[in-house]
Amino acid sequence: MKWSVNAGVVDTMWAMVEELFPIHRTLVNDGIRNSLELIRSSLDIAIHEFPSGMHVWDWIIPEAWNVNQAYIADLSGRKLVDFRNNNLHLAAYSCPFQGRLTKAELLEHIWTLPDQPDAIPYRTLYYKENQWRFCLAHDELSLFNDDDQYEVCIDVDLRPGKLCVGEFVLPGKTDKEIWLTSYLCHPSLANDNLSGVALAVSVMKTLASMPDRQYSYRLLLWPESIGATTYLASHEQILEKVVGGYVFTCCGDAGPITYKKSYFGNTLIDQAALHALRYADRGNYSIRDFWLNGSDEQKFNAPGVRLPFGSFMRTPYSEFPEYHTSKDNLSFISKDQLAEILSVVLKALFIADTNRIYEPLYKGEPFLSKHGLHRQVDLKRPDRKSLAYIQRVLTMETDGHNSLLDIANKWDYHFDDILDESIIFSQAGLFKALN
Amino acid sequence: MKWSVNAGVVDTMWAMVEELFPIHRTLVNDGIRNSLELIRSSLDIAIHEFPSGMHVWDWIIPEAWNVNQAYIADLSGRKLVDFRNNNLHLAAYSCPFQGRLTKAELLEHIWTLPDQPDAIPYRTLYYKENQWRFCLAHDELSLFNDDDQYEVCIDVDLRPGKLCVGEFVLPGKTDKEIWLTSYLCHPSLANDNLSGVALAVSVMKTLASMPDRQYSYRLLLWPESIGATTYLASHEQILEKVVGGYVFTCCGDAGPITYKKSYFGNTLIDQAALHALRYADRGNYSIRDFWLNGSDEQKFNAPGVRLPFGSFMRTPYSEFPEYHTSKDNLSFISKDQLAEILSVVLKALFIADTNRIYEPLYKGEPFLSKHGLHRQVDLKRPDRKSLAYIQRVLTMETDGHNSLLDIANKWDYHFDDILDESIIFSQAGLFKALN
Amino acid sequence: MKWSVNAGVVDTMWAMVEELFPIHRTLVNDGIRNSLELIRSSLDIAIHEFPSGMHVWDWIIPEAWNVNQAYIADLSGRKLVDFRNNNLHLAAYSCPFQGRLTKAELLEHIWTLPDQPDAIPYRTLYYKENQWRFCLAHDELSLFNDDDQYEVCIDVDLRPGKLCVGEFVLPGKTDKEIWLTSYLCHPSLANDNLSGVALAVSVMKTLASMPDRQYSYRLLLWPESIGATTYLASHEQILEKVVGGYVFTCCGDAGPITYKKSYFGNTLIDQAALHALRYADRGNYSIRDFWLNGSDEQKFNAPGVRLPFGSFMRTPYSEFPEYHTSKDNLSFISKDQLAEILSVVLKALFIADTNRIYEPLYKGEPFLSKHGLHRQVDLKRPDRKSLAYIQRVLTMETDGHNSLLDIANKWDYHFDDILDESIIFSQAGLFKALN
Repeated sequence: MKWSVNAGVVDTMWAMVEELFPIHRTLVNDGIRNSLELIRSSLDIAIHEFPSGMHVWDWIIPEAWNVNQAYIADLSGRKLVDFRNNNLHLAAYSCPFQGRLTKAELLEHIWTLPDQPDAIPYRTLYYKENQWRFCLAHDELSLFNDDDQYEVCIDVDLRPGKLCVGEFVLPGKTDKEIWLTSYLCHPSLANDNLSGVALAVSVMKTLASMPDRQYSYRLLLWPESIGATTYLASHEQILEKVVGGYVFTCCGDAGPITYKKSYFGNTLIDQAALHALRYADRGNYSIRDFWLNGSDEQKFNAPGVRLPFGSFMRTPYSEFPEYHTSKDNLSFISKDQLAEILSVVLKALFIADTNRIYEPLYKGEPFLSKHGLHRQVDLKRPDRKSLAYIQRVLTMETDGHNSLLDIANKWDYHFDDILDESIIFSQAGLFKALN
Repeated sequence: MKWSVNAGVVDTMWAMVEELFPIHRTLVNDGIRNSLELIRSSLDIAIHEFPSGMHVWDWIIPEAWNVNQAYIADLSGRKLVDFRNNNLHLAAYSCPFQGRLTKAELLEHIWTLPDQPDAIPYRTLYYKENQWRFCLAHDELSLFNDDDQYEVCIDVDLRPGKLCVGEFVLPGKTDKEIWLTSYLCHPSLANDNLSGVALAVSVMKTLASMPDRQYSYRLLLWPESIGATTYLASHEQILEKVVGGYVFTCCGDAGPITYKKSYFGNTLIDQAALHALRYADRGNYSIRDFWLNGSDEQKFNAPGVRLPFGSFMRTPYSEFPEYHTSKDNLSFISKDQLAEILSVVLKALFIADTNRIYEPLYKGEPFLSKHGLHRQVDLKRPDRKSLAYIQRVLTMETDGHNSLLDIANKWDYHFDDILDESIIFSQAGLFKALN
Repeated sequence: MKWSVNAGVVDTMWAMVEELFPIHRTLVNDGIRNSLELIRSSLDIAIHEFPSGMHVWDWIIPEAWNVNQAYIADLSGRKLVDFRNNNLHLAAYSCPFQGRLTKAELLEHIWTLPDQPDAIPYRTLYYKENQWRFCLAHDELSLFNDDDQYEVCIDVDLRPGKLCVGEFVLPGKTDKEIWLTSYLCHPSLANDNLSGVALAVSVMKTLASMPDRQYSYRLLLWPESIGATTYLASHEQILEKVVGGYVFTCCGDAGPITYKKSYFGNTLIDQAALHALRYADRGNYSIRDFWLNGSDEQKFNAPGVRLPFGSFMRTPYSEFPEYHTSKDNLSFISKDQLAEILSVVLKALFIADTNRIYEPLYKGEPFLSKHGLHRQVDLKRPDRKSLAYIQRVLTMETDGHNSLLDIANKWDYHFDDILDESIIFSQAGLFKALN
């Protein structure tokens, strides 16, 4: 049975994006926890907590940062810039501040994007102490007059808290695992990365409804980078079971589907993704070698872990102008675009999961007539799409070493064509699966 | 001493084709045995018998099928179609039948080739029970009238018999074997495959007249597919001695000489064939990767055997329109074309057989003057065809790992150039053969 | 600290070429010993002696050949050709001779270059007995008249002597060695090969002034071919410590710098040379695969030794018309051209010597902020020349397997960029060197 996307899952995926969008999230705060709880209403994830100050490999879990209020007001009390209107206005992990500043003083604490004057940038002050910044649309600078003074209020709590990781484990026939991960530490940004979070959850929901999974699957949602490091450092003992995985990010925009290969470039998870894209019959897709400046795939592929993780996305993060601005909002992404990448990811996972290595239970070539499997070949005009031809591919290649995907790639067949006939041979007692 | 073709062998080869052509052969019948006995008058082959019903790996040896008479007559007793005129008229392994049929009923038991209306197709009903077919030239259908009835007589014996295999073993210095095989289960068809049978016999006759063979050679003639499986299943214990081999088929037509690589593609037998063709100075030849839908090379290369067998042919079987029709007759092939491929095959076998790996009995470079082998090099205009240059190739590469063929291919020399100089070095006590 | 060329070394290098030029050298004679002693005034080399008649692997050290006088005079006693005017006039290892000859008789003992009528060829009669030849400019044949007779005097000593090898060993932190070799058996020829001799000495002088060398370096100067074989045969026990090396020849002409790869083609010494040339910012250089007809690199790469030695040169020996003629004189080469190749060779050796393999002392990615090493990356416009980007390259690749040069080549960085940042990581306690 092939794995396919259920329309209900797509609707739920989109609803999840809409519900999560307004919530203010950062590395460690209440918004992350609230977001994970909201997700739990759709998929029964566990929420694990790791305390601030915990040493995780070379890193330390930061404190929780929650915003009570943050604004810039004129002296009449009118709020010119207010975190409540857009949670991008305050750079993440800004320190508390209360005071009256001139425009000139204020400008030293304001980030804008002069090239995109109507967009608010998303910026962070992670691992920097005693700094604060407001982020504004460049056009909003006209709100301020040179001669006036302004009241700045940054009322934030920075105190020990808990880094939260959402996890869902779907057991398979074997304890070998494929991981599906995304990060939800960004505030109101849609493509980066609520699209990835919702996609990852939807992939897992679909997998859970499929019978007969070979691998176990583990969904992991966390704050980017520190969340991955925290989890890896706390789960070293299970890493040897991990076959690889995919990181989902920026999956909802209108660009072509892009697969970023793992550091290794040619592992099962890479081959499955490449095959799925090649045969997805969409024409327009992009395959890229592993590059630096990435998301959590950097952590997985890094020395000391060296697990093959690729990444599914549409337009890569740094290549769309809306990236890390207020323009990366719900209108920048679409349900259809999310649904399309969901179906490709499921195809890749189906290939990875059903990619058997068979050993023949006969020597030489099987006597197909005897097994009721003989199909006539037109010797003068052999048709490589015919089942008779595919039988010959299978019987020549199935030797206990070549996987179905190896065979499909070598002879340029769709994986499903090889798989379907291999199942018939297996059911006829001609093949024995080795994995 | 190089191996070369003797004109007498070529004449005998052609006479053999002419004598074998009229005989009716199929998988198991008297015709096969008669054909092998006729061949035995030219080369002293052993004829081995394997009984019908014997299990050979996944297969079962079929019963013998001999035709007493088979015809379609009008009610006046005039034979319109008669097996005696052309043994392609009755599909192989048709069941016995006697009866009177209308034209409409008859047509359900007749195969023709509408695209080639003057050619009788060659067809079989192997492993199908209770079926019978006549094979006619499409033009011959005009013999039948809609309103008439016809008497059909198929008088055949289908009973337990003996599958016959012809074998000739030529011992060499080592017990490592190269196999030369062809199949003779086809009735009156010339290119496919009396050309291959006669070529295989002629190669072996020529080898037998050459001194100093390194490998042992084994000629095997059998009914296609079931013969190969029968022999392999009965000789599993010798397979580990087999280096590889060649299957000969369709060797007499006017197409360019074609070499079909083994499944592995780059073994000794492949490299020897490629080198022989490349340096045969004929310009027009064709090298193809292993493909499916083949002859007995499928059995040799298949999982559970996995021995490297390539195939020599001229036009590949499925690519000439005369294939498996009455047009594949003696006028379709020629003695010269057979002689040409014979010389290429001998060249390939010579290369495979004489391809030594030498170890130098000195360190660094040899003092050629001392050994009387010094040849002056023109340092300003070094000539790579000069023996002085070839000496340098040999002394740089001969290290106990590189074979002569490796060296010839790496430096783009004819194998013979490298071989000749290596023999001089060996005779001078500078090289010791490791194989 | 990078390795760089000192102007004083360049001046000394050139002065050495000028001083060595007039001396008459051959395989074994006083001139070789005098030349090595002259070199010893610049670098304190040891001079090793090996007696004539000694068996060295397949070879035998020849006798010493010293020339007292050699001339062709007319009957009036006027010397028309005199070894004292140009030591190329007598072919090396000519036998003694005294006699009166006609022009016709004389011409059988004269070599000229008709294509280069004003150039005296350089020729040898190594390992040939009882032969003598004069070498003349073709134009000089006009000195002789058909009807006259000429007095020939070849007063040479051929007697047991000592083959001399100059050696300088510069110890490093490890006993793994890189060898730098050249040959000085040629008489008054400048590019081939006083340029190579002076370059090799100058490289070693520069290395000796550098701190912290990882490898030990061994300079070896000898008569070509027989000197290399003599030394190798006498030092088999140290060969396992040799990583590889460079042969220096024809380094002073105006051609582009050329690197001839080792037989292996991709070893450390090859990669270091290629990287140095690629990044030397000179535009014009040439990389060639190992070819036959070479100098001592033939001995090093040959079977039984199989050590990777490349060769640095400018125009390859056989490709400049002045090669092995009197036109290969001091005006054919220049100090600047020698200085340029000296700097490339030092760069190559610096790369080979400092090419560490590091193991990370953390897992995953390091927390650079904590180590004071964090550099901001512009996520939208990542600049691969930035140190922040180079840090990511280093942290992704440094895994105890990839060397710095592997990393630089994979990601297309100058070795120094990777090296510099790796030293910072190492000093911060993040990396541990494995070699």
